[in-house]
Amino acid sequence: RGNTLLSLRGQEFLSPNMFKRCCRYVSKAAAKPQVEFDYDGPSMKTTVPGPRSKELMKQLGQIQNTGAINFFCNYEESKGNYLVDVDGNRMLDIYTQISSIPIGYNHPALLKVMANPNNLSTFVNRPALGILPPENFPDKITESLLSVAPSGMTRVQTMSCGACSNENAYKAIFIWYRNKERGQNTPTNEELNTSMINQAPGCPELSILSFMGGFHGRTLGCLATTHSKAIHKLDIPSFDWPVAPFPRLQYPLDEFTRENAEEEARCLEEVEDLIVKWRQKGKPVAGIVIEPIQAEGGDNHASPDFFRRLRNIARKHGCAFHVDEVQTGGGGTGKFWAHEHWGMDDPADIVSFSKKLLSGGYYHKDELQPDKPYRIFNTWMGDPSKNLFLSEVLNVIRRENLLEEVTRSGKALLNGLYELQAQYPSILSRARGQGTFCAIDAFDDATRDRILLKARDKGVLLGGCGDRSIRFRPALVFKEYHVNLFLNIFNDVLAQHK
Amino acid sequence: RGNTLLSLRGQEFLSPNMFKRCCRYVSKAAAKPQVEFDYDGPSMKTTVPGPRSKELMKQLGQIQNTGAINFFCNYEESKGNYLVDVDGNRMLDIYTQISSIPIGYNHPALLKVMANPNNLSTFVNRPALGILPPENFPDKITESLLSVAPSGMTRVQTMSCGACSNENAYKAIFIWYRNKERGQNTPTNEELNTSMINQAPGCPELSILSFMGGFHGRTLGCLATTHSKAIHKLDIPSFDWPVAPFPRLQYPLDEFTRENAEEEARCLEEVEDLIVKWRQKGKPVAGIVIEPIQAEGGDNHASPDFFRRLRNIARKHGCAFHVDEVQTGGGGTGKFWAHEHWGMDDPADIVSFSKKLLSGGYYHKDELQPDKPYRIFNTWMGDPSKNLFLSEVLNVIRRENLLEEVTRSGKALLNGLYELQAQYPSILSRARGQGTFCAIDAFDDATRDRILLKARDKGVLLGGCGDRSIRFRPALVFKEYHVNLFLNIFNDVLAQHK
Repeated sequence: RGNTLLSLRGQEFLSPNMFKRCCRYVSKAAAKPQVEFDYDGPSMKTTVPGPRSKELMKQLGQIQNTGAINFFCNYEESKGNYLVDVDGNRMLDIYTQISSIPIGYNHPALLKVMANPNNLSTFVNRPALGILPPENFPDKITESLLSVAPSGMTRVQTMSCGACSNENAYKAIFIWYRNKERGQNTPTNEELNTSMINQAPGCPELSILSFMGGFHGRTLGCLATTHSKAIHKLDIPSFDWPVAPFPRLQYPLDEFTRENAEEEARCLEEVEDLIVKWRQKGKPVAGIVIEPIQAEGGDNHASPDFFRRLRNIARKHGCAFHVDEVQTGGGGTGKFWAHEHWGMDDPADIVSFSKKLLSGGYYHKDELQPDKPYRIFNTWMGDPSKNLFLSEVLNVIRRENLLEEVTRSGKALLNGLYELQAQYPSILSRARGQGTFCAIDAFDDATRDRILLKARDKGVLLGGCGDRSIRFRPALVFKEYHVNLFLNIFNDVLAQHK
Repeated sequence: RGNTLLSLRGQEFLSPNMFKRCCRYVSKAAAKPQVEFDYDGPSMKTTVPGPRSKELMKQLGQIQNTGAINFFCNYEESKGNYLVDVDGNRMLDIYTQISSIPIGYNHPALLKVMANPNNLSTFVNRPALGILPPENFPDKITESLLSVAPSGMTRVQTMSCGACSNENAYKAIFIWYRNKERGQNTPTNEELNTSMINQAPGCPELSILSFMGGFHGRTLGCLATTHSKAIHKLDIPSFDWPVAPFPRLQYPLDEFTRENAEEEARCLEEVEDLIVKWRQKGKPVAGIVIEPIQAEGGDNHASPDFFRRLRNIARKHGCAFHVDEVQTGGGGTGKFWAHEHWGMDDPADIVSFSKKLLSGGYYHKDELQPDKPYRIFNTWMGDPSKNLFLSEVLNVIRRENLLEEVTRSGKALLNGLYELQAQYPSILSRARGQGTFCAIDAFDDATRDRILLKARDKGVLLGGCGDRSIRFRPALVFKEYHVNLFLNIFNDVLAQHK
């Protein structure tokens, strides 16, 4: 990322701007697919959604709002990088259920987990993990979640989904912050009594600082830190918590080093101002929450230097530093955690996850563990059957060196996007990415939406994010072969675009 | 419930007070167990937690706060009503993972779901249900969740857990309420812009009225309506939302009709006062949330008349009426939903569920469906693999008439508790219940905790709730045979209690 000369499979690619001189994207010879359980390519029978999907949409419309439904799927027939729909259309899936399918559909290793009779009981008897964990629970989380723990963290709290992970991470932050203030003292009766009726001092006016464009979930606590789209937040009561600007960088990053550094400095200054201001307001900032790459908000990047400085600001002001890796975690950026790109030994106080990790939770430093049981608690506290799958996913990632593969595919993808934006400057701009966690902007939202639909009808499933961005979220088994397949189809779409 | 003469299997039992004359609980001849896959009875090898559990607790203590952990379990060996621990102790489980195991451990019908190869893909490929549901999704929720939909509700929104169910139900209420106020108008730019920074009018100051002693979850929105214990709420920022008193009734209900009616009237009056007061404060009550029986808060009951009047108050003031059946739903009270005991055609606007239904969600009336997609949304929106199990659970409930069985076992249990409190009036009081959803109070919390531990060491697993209550939450396969087994052991515990 960010090198002027990108070396890729022996070929030398020039910096993105050089591509402006190329006249048309030329497809490379496609290498054979390396994913054994994959299909050869997309195969389209109808436009999408097809007639069967439309029928089912009508049926489901009696029960739910179906406005967000793309189409109905045949998950039995889906394989590897390909999602098959109920009309027999087979699409190359570069969105993977909003980035939550780590190693493709129906991976043989996961089917094997199901075939093992020793695992049956884990699926059938969901425990209340916080009070009655299964015998293998410590071993299972050691071999799964703890084997990929972020630097400096030996503790993990499992949860069922991304929103619950962040909600409980915030709670851990508030508890830690108040305990720091309280010192050796036990909570007063006034605190205990007022907490029962939602009033201070028991329910203190603490805040979490978040960033404009950030997305951390949709439950009421999370939603107070989410600022990606108004439709997510409209009509829902919220907290008066500070919102800092997230850097709006220019891409490619290495061509705008000075401008970007200035923009990042401006945002960091604002962060410190807000911390001071909210302290004066009597609503001190107990924690700062941030994504390593703002995903839902439009794939906004910031430099490792920005995050290092932000982490220091958090430390200086006594705020916990919470890195939300719900979307970035699990390998898509070419490292297991996106924050590894920052190169820090002590990157965060809390790191939350979900999606590709198949259930949710957060890692934390020792001091973020609540002093008493039941303060962070719910009935299920996660789901051991998902951890069974996660163990296997991690085995596959290691066995097949998938992080290296992602880095390789990601370079090919980003280079292809650079070429395409050079070729179609009136349609595309701002190609950016880390690993296969890439994005590119369309001219406007209408253009973006039209491109997404056209690509889908040609057998490529992509996602939108932000105002007018296209986001790429393939599985970790997305190889250079698939990149080339995609680029050819995408080129056709763009060529036909009026 | 509440009859002076309780007819049970041809035997006539007198009213609870009559038992005071009996001198000692006498065990009845135990009928043969009717649960085929059950064990014969408890079997204890060590005190609990045993040495292996203690070892594992130490191991897990390196990773998590283990203060709430009772012991570690061998779920493979657990069967029906019996939970087996890692030290080979086999306990009659009357708590069932905080009331979340509907038909016992390792039920053959659920194991069969796992054995069906057609189901594999549902476990391995977890979809983003809101955008890409599987082909069978409309059919599956029709045959599972909708087949037990509360009166007047044809719509259901699935979610992953109880907290997310309530959080999203509250959001649906707020959206509905603001849309009512807005009429035909679209949201203003000011609303859209202010919503992005958590400010009114976009994020309006609306409230949810809840009850002292209520429990609706622990994420920040839910927690603002939870008022069971200070430790759940301490140090977490909250909303200034109204908290009404929940009736503190005297038991048995039928012996205190007049006093209880007065207490209920007092609480309802307070509810109306609070609605008016919060409207004047500029924080109108958009919804009222209540449990049919306050569970975590101490198994507090109220009469059908109370709920009918409360429902009318909600209607009169334009507030949505949200019945939280996360713990009461699924059959434990002898009806599938506890609110069915109220005998209303239009019991609620929203009914939320989780636990025994194996994943979460809420039913709602048509007008509570958000006007636009993505307003109620998250990545997974539930888990179809849990719905597979739920379908089977519902089949078993119907095939084996489990709701009738629960009613029968529940009567035996409550009668047994009446006898015991008559026999041990210095230890026990306030026996109460509906179906097997029963509770009894101990003299104080220390007594309660001692009794719970002693019962456990004798092979009976119970739960606590409120200050000093013992709660009974067996699976639906808990028969009279198990009631008698329990009563004998419990009698021994009480006899030995000093």
